[in-house]
Amino acid sequence: MATIVLYSMNRTAQNTARLCFFPYSTRASIVDSRISFFNNTSVRRLTPLPGARWVPKATGVQRSALLFAGAAAAVLGFVASASHFQRAEMATMITKTEETEISEKCKKFMSPPCTDVKVLEQKKEEMCTRMEMLIMETQAEFCRALEEVDGGMFKVDKWERKEGGGGISCVLQDGKVFEKAGVNVSVVFGNLTEEAAKQMRSRGKVLRGKDGILPFCAMGVSSVIHPKNPHIPTVHFNYRYFEIEEEDGTKQWWFGGGTDLTPTYVNKEDGAHFHNSLKEACEKHHPKYYPDFKKWCDRYFYIRHRGETRGIGGIFFDDLDSPNQEEAFSFVRSCAQTVVPCYLPIVYKHLNDPFSPEEKDWQQVRRGRYVEFNLVYDRGVKFGLATPGSRIESILMSLPLTAKWEYMHEPPKGSQEADTLEVLRNPKEWV
Amino acid sequence: MATIVLYSMNRTAQNTARLCFFPYSTRASIVDSRISFFNNTSVRRLTPLPGARWVPKATGVQRSALLFAGAAAAVLGFVASASHFQRAEMATMITKTEETEISEKCKKFMSPPCTDVKVLEQKKEEMCTRMEMLIMETQAEFCRALEEVDGGMFKVDKWERKEGGGGISCVLQDGKVFEKAGVNVSVVFGNLTEEAAKQMRSRGKVLRGKDGILPFCAMGVSSVIHPKNPHIPTVHFNYRYFEIEEEDGTKQWWFGGGTDLTPTYVNKEDGAHFHNSLKEACEKHHPKYYPDFKKWCDRYFYIRHRGETRGIGGIFFDDLDSPNQEEAFSFVRSCAQTVVPCYLPIVYKHLNDPFSPEEKDWQQVRRGRYVEFNLVYDRGVKFGLATPGSRIESILMSLPLTAKWEYMHEPPKGSQEADTLEVLRNPKEWV
Repeated sequence: MATIVLYSMNRTAQNTARLCFFPYSTRASIVDSRISFFNNTSVRRLTPLPGARWVPKATGVQRSALLFAGAAAAVLGFVASASHFQRAEMATMITKTEETEISEKCKKFMSPPCTDVKVLEQKKEEMCTRMEMLIMETQAEFCRALEEVDGGMFKVDKWERKEGGGGISCVLQDGKVFEKAGVNVSVVFGNLTEEAAKQMRSRGKVLRGKDGILPFCAMGVSSVIHPKNPHIPTVHFNYRYFEIEEEDGTKQWWFGGGTDLTPTYVNKEDGAHFHNSLKEACEKHHPKYYPDFKKWCDRYFYIRHRGETRGIGGIFFDDLDSPNQEEAFSFVRSCAQTVVPCYLPIVYKHLNDPFSPEEKDWQQVRRGRYVEFNLVYDRGVKFGLATPGSRIESILMSLPLTAKWEYMHEPPKGSQEADTLEVLRNPKEWV
Repeated sequence: MATIVLYSMNRTAQNTARLCFFPYSTRASIVDSRISFFNNTSVRRLTPLPGARWVPKATGVQRSALLFAGAAAAVLGFVASASHFQRAEMATMITKTEETEISEKCKKFMSPPCTDVKVLEQKKEEMCTRMEMLIMETQAEFCRALEEVDGGMFKVDKWERKEGGGGISCVLQDGKVFEKAGVNVSVVFGNLTEEAAKQMRSRGKVLRGKDGILPFCAMGVSSVIHPKNPHIPTVHFNYRYFEIEEEDGTKQWWFGGGTDLTPTYVNKEDGAHFHNSLKEACEKHHPKYYPDFKKWCDRYFYIRHRGETRGIGGIFFDDLDSPNQEEAFSFVRSCAQTVVPCYLPIVYKHLNDPFSPEEKDWQQVRRGRYVEFNLVYDRGVKFGLATPGSRIESILMSLPLTAKWEYMHEPPKGSQEADTLEVLRNPKEWV
């Protein structure tokens, strides 16, 4: 039970909280590099995957966030040569950066943010504000990119948590491309007992509260995307921030998160592109981040009773409070900004791949394994389900629309399905 | 964690065991009342449900077990008048009872029993032998009854557990009537630590072992049946026996089990028939068994995070070691013998009910809730999954072939689906 809470903090902490207030103040640099999401003069260099088909729709100002997901490559006419193990170059080039007011930025979100805009503006230098803006932007960016490729619209539910805070759940269900796509943001605050606070940290550090009570603030963005086509993999990401105030007024804070891919059929090029994108984001910050967090991801997303990983991994980290808050936030921002370029090129590449009923069936069996991981092992889900008053629909929106359990299912030797299982049973290096 | 093991002991205990031997001896009366399963001169009085259509196929000697499930009523021409809350009379009348040798009885099982027949014959008075015969008979009886109505055949897997014991898993998948039907038997023995032994008991009683080690024997029959037609409910039952030898050689023993129904659409007559059948079985043994075990069942099969029960319940009990071993066994035998008359009349009644795609969809949503209960709360599944070396396919054969998770699914007010939810949110009395 010691570390049950940290993962998927946005979903989990909401129910342990009580009544707490965090002073917010501003710093203008928070989201400067992300203005590009909503600024149609921004350009990113994208290397499409071999065989990728860029099928962007006409983009307007509100849709400009998508430029760097798929359309940018077409705009730039930048096409790399094909190779099985080719690294997808995904560096970001921002041609124009400008400061805009928080209220302006908020207009581009999927919903007004959880915290009142006036409060965010008053406290715009505080990490809580900066992180809330980052997760709101990440949600909007990702949802718009998915809407662009699917043609459908996300259903947006803004909900409040009576104990403090709330969230915004965006779900696109039974679309053209996506069976179920959920992107959830939550921002919660309240009080924790010392025992609960200890459980919140991976390392189980003891924290002392005034009269045993510790005010806290937790927030995060979390998403699971289940496409219809079995050749488009499922993706999951989650980035979160935690702050706890100790007895003497000092604040303990840390970040956690990760992005990982779950293909129905392992594709080496996709795997290399996905992992390379993450590696590049990591390497801007620390040479050990990618190798360490890649291993952590393989360990975490392991379905023990099946002896296989959920997918081909990515990165996963928790309890990150070094080298300092600014650097840690900068790393998390890099990771969050890598979600779209990690995943969307793979979606576009396989958008029109034909598939057989047998391939769809194998996808459904793998979906069953996804359900098993999420309900049996996922710490965020476990904690959320165990906590009265959770918003259960937000916690379980990670489950696929449909799944299947066949007794004694074992793909024939030498089949593509068996090859995929082999990789899931023996995690490999992708870069 | 204190009571994690007892439920579905057949699935759970198999992996905690090490090396133990239990002396077996015989008592001829073990299965006398169950000879009728395989004796086509046996007759039971069955009250078909109002509207039930008895569609028995031609039965041979090997299929005679089915007589009392559906065909008996047709043979006897015993048809009750219809009433919404009518109690289905389900008393057993055995016209001929005869002793047969264990080896003869074993020939009618789905597979040779887990324990060598010679050992069973040598130790035929021991409770372990009597219970193993009962669970093997229950498996055979139920599987034959399901094959009769479905037309398909069970796949039978006999497996061994290297630490001691083994099991027989029978699965009928994607049949005409049943989407997935699993009937599992296991008999395991080995050694437990004192801590593990304590966890095995609901009441967490401390047991002392020689050098901290307690030889144990555990066995049970467990089944989940998911039909295709959304008007035929899912049924689950599990009956189990546990024996632990203490330091001074005294044996602690207890029984557990239950039978419960999970309809997609609540049907009052079916509910009354099902509960009445169980009540009658209980009342032969103790007037408080039905009311107490009915409540226990509602409490146990509760999906806390949804605020609803898994189905309309039935009975559930654990840790039963009174008034004495003979009486407790006799009660468990009555329960096991009630499985077919509880359920099969409901299957036959709804066999040809027409259903719409919307009704099938609601069934799939309810299947999702079934998966949630089984993976999140079921103590047997949780323990099995957490224990290395489990036979995972036997543990998870309780999962439906297919399931669905729709975001924010809520049936419209006044619909049949809403009526069903209402009952699941407020468990009712059925008799």
